[in-house]
Amino acid sequence: MAVYTHVDPDDLAALVARYDIGTVISCKGIAEGVENSNFLLETTKERFILTLYEKRVRESDLPFFVDLLGHLAAKDCPVPAMIRDRDGTAIQQVAGKSACIIQFLTGISLTKPTTGQCEAAGAALGAMHRAVADFAGSRENSMGHQHWRGIAKAAGDLDVVVPGLQAVVDAELGFLDAHWPTDLPAHVIHADLFPDNVLMLGDTVTGLIDFYFAASDYRAYDVAVTHASWVFSTDGTRCDTARARALMRGYASEIALTDAEVAALPLLARGASLRFLLTRAHDWVHTPADALVTRKDPTPFLNRLRRYQADDAASLFASA
Amino acid sequence: MAVYTHVDPDDLAALVARYDIGTVISCKGIAEGVENSNFLLETTKERFILTLYEKRVRESDLPFFVDLLGHLAAKDCPVPAMIRDRDGTAIQQVAGKSACIIQFLTGISLTKPTTGQCEAAGAALGAMHRAVADFAGSRENSMGHQHWRGIAKAAGDLDVVVPGLQAVVDAELGFLDAHWPTDLPAHVIHADLFPDNVLMLGDTVTGLIDFYFAASDYRAYDVAVTHASWVFSTDGTRCDTARARALMRGYASEIALTDAEVAALPLLARGASLRFLLTRAHDWVHTPADALVTRKDPTPFLNRLRRYQADDAASLFASA
Repeated sequence: MAVYTHVDPDDLAALVARYDIGTVISCKGIAEGVENSNFLLETTKERFILTLYEKRVRESDLPFFVDLLGHLAAKDCPVPAMIRDRDGTAIQQVAGKSACIIQFLTGISLTKPTTGQCEAAGAALGAMHRAVADFAGSRENSMGHQHWRGIAKAAGDLDVVVPGLQAVVDAELGFLDAHWPTDLPAHVIHADLFPDNVLMLGDTVTGLIDFYFAASDYRAYDVAVTHASWVFSTDGTRCDTARARALMRGYASEIALTDAEVAALPLLARGASLRFLLTRAHDWVHTPADALVTRKDPTPFLNRLRRYQADDAASLFASA
Repeated sequence: MAVYTHVDPDDLAALVARYDIGTVISCKGIAEGVENSNFLLETTKERFILTLYEKRVRESDLPFFVDLLGHLAAKDCPVPAMIRDRDGTAIQQVAGKSACIIQFLTGISLTKPTTGQCEAAGAALGAMHRAVADFAGSRENSMGHQHWRGIAKAAGDLDVVVPGLQAVVDAELGFLDAHWPTDLPAHVIHADLFPDNVLMLGDTVTGLIDFYFAASDYRAYDVAVTHASWVFSTDGTRCDTARARALMRGYASEIALTDAEVAALPLLARGASLRFLLTRAHDWVHTPADALVTRKDPTPFLNRLRRYQADDAASLFASA
């Protein structure tokens, strides 16, 4: 659930007046994004999202996101580009916060993707990778492999979350350090393309959203994150091979992964599972049980990790 | 901040298919209403609000609200009427909750109304009272005068909120019981027309919203609630006489209050201040200090109560 900074109607009118987008006729806070304040802003001309950046997004990263989404939108990827005002400025100040007026995209956030939707998501991810390949910007992945030991340490005693979890994590960190690839194709990736970050109408992708974890990393790691978040049962115990094949088939329709990438997928997916297991465990430990925010259970990603550790894990990434 | 019940895209499509309103192209949870789940629903034809009723609104009250808002909308009051499906049904079941698809109204919720906006709000309240006068429905005001002792008792020790508050409340309850009028003009009133329940564009009222406290009571009590919430400084210590006159002038342009009503206004406003003081004190006592919902400070309504208790309080209700 989002945090809301109040926007004064006069400040809002003054902001919108910097753009050639008409005048405000409606502005409602929406429950989208994790720690930003988001508003559905309607003007006499069009609808937009107004985002005020709260603590999660570093101000110094905003120009990177503006450039990235502008690059992708210019290549017809369905991403929410930041709008520039008459002076060419995209990052504004509203209520003491950095703020952007952003393209509105139609579509509904997914929760239980079908096979057809998995194929469409895979293709959209592949098309996004093709479009981003020549993007000049870069950003360190603060949620990437190099940082997992630190996140695990910051989470505290993992056995509090699930008895025995600390030993599982320690062993996995050792295994991943020993085997993490060093030379796969890399560029800026989404790094968090869960179903709720994809807008669809039927089987058509209308939006890839929430790029605020986007960073430089292996493109195959992005495939692994998407695999881990799209093709499992909610509890993470069961991988749906039809949906997995559809996802990989969709991606393959846009990008032919190299042999080294294909061989690395099970390992990268173990890493992706560990990444979400660790950040959820961290939030679990540091969020009071009676807080009014939903703590996401880490266990489903422990279950995925176990599935990807199995000897036959490579078969989960077949596209036919 | 609103609670959100998740709506499955398939359930949403099935709901919308019951109406002649096109197909869904977007649906976003919005931060409007206190304890309902509200969504901004966009179809190929139009925008709507989808409301799922949570604990605050009793299911048995819903037909009353449907009838009331239908009555007012038919008389061109800018209220969000519930839409009826092809079978004439307005109250549906979605995700195990009662739900309505409701007209979308443009406009921005006010926070700091200007004098011109106070006049427009007064006129809109008066016009709504004219329109509601022949409405046949009725509903007990569970937040009305008869219930304040019970609310005070349920709040617990009021001195925890503000030292000395219990004695102030006890004395005021006694005074109001002794002097509360018994025969003023009454009909269904809004009973909660705070600035954030009025949508405006400039000085034009585009929406009166959140009728879920609407109930049968004195129309002059509705004026008193609106006065208490529109014309004071945020801390409740200062009544802005220019805004107060504008509000009363606007109302008078639609409704001529009787002499008995005019004479009762200071008393009714003491009651209105006590009502919000008590419900906020109740929430203050019963909401943990570290909860992620905002506890509204009761003190500004204690300050209003004191202002309305003063000998010159009648002057605050002059319209010229």
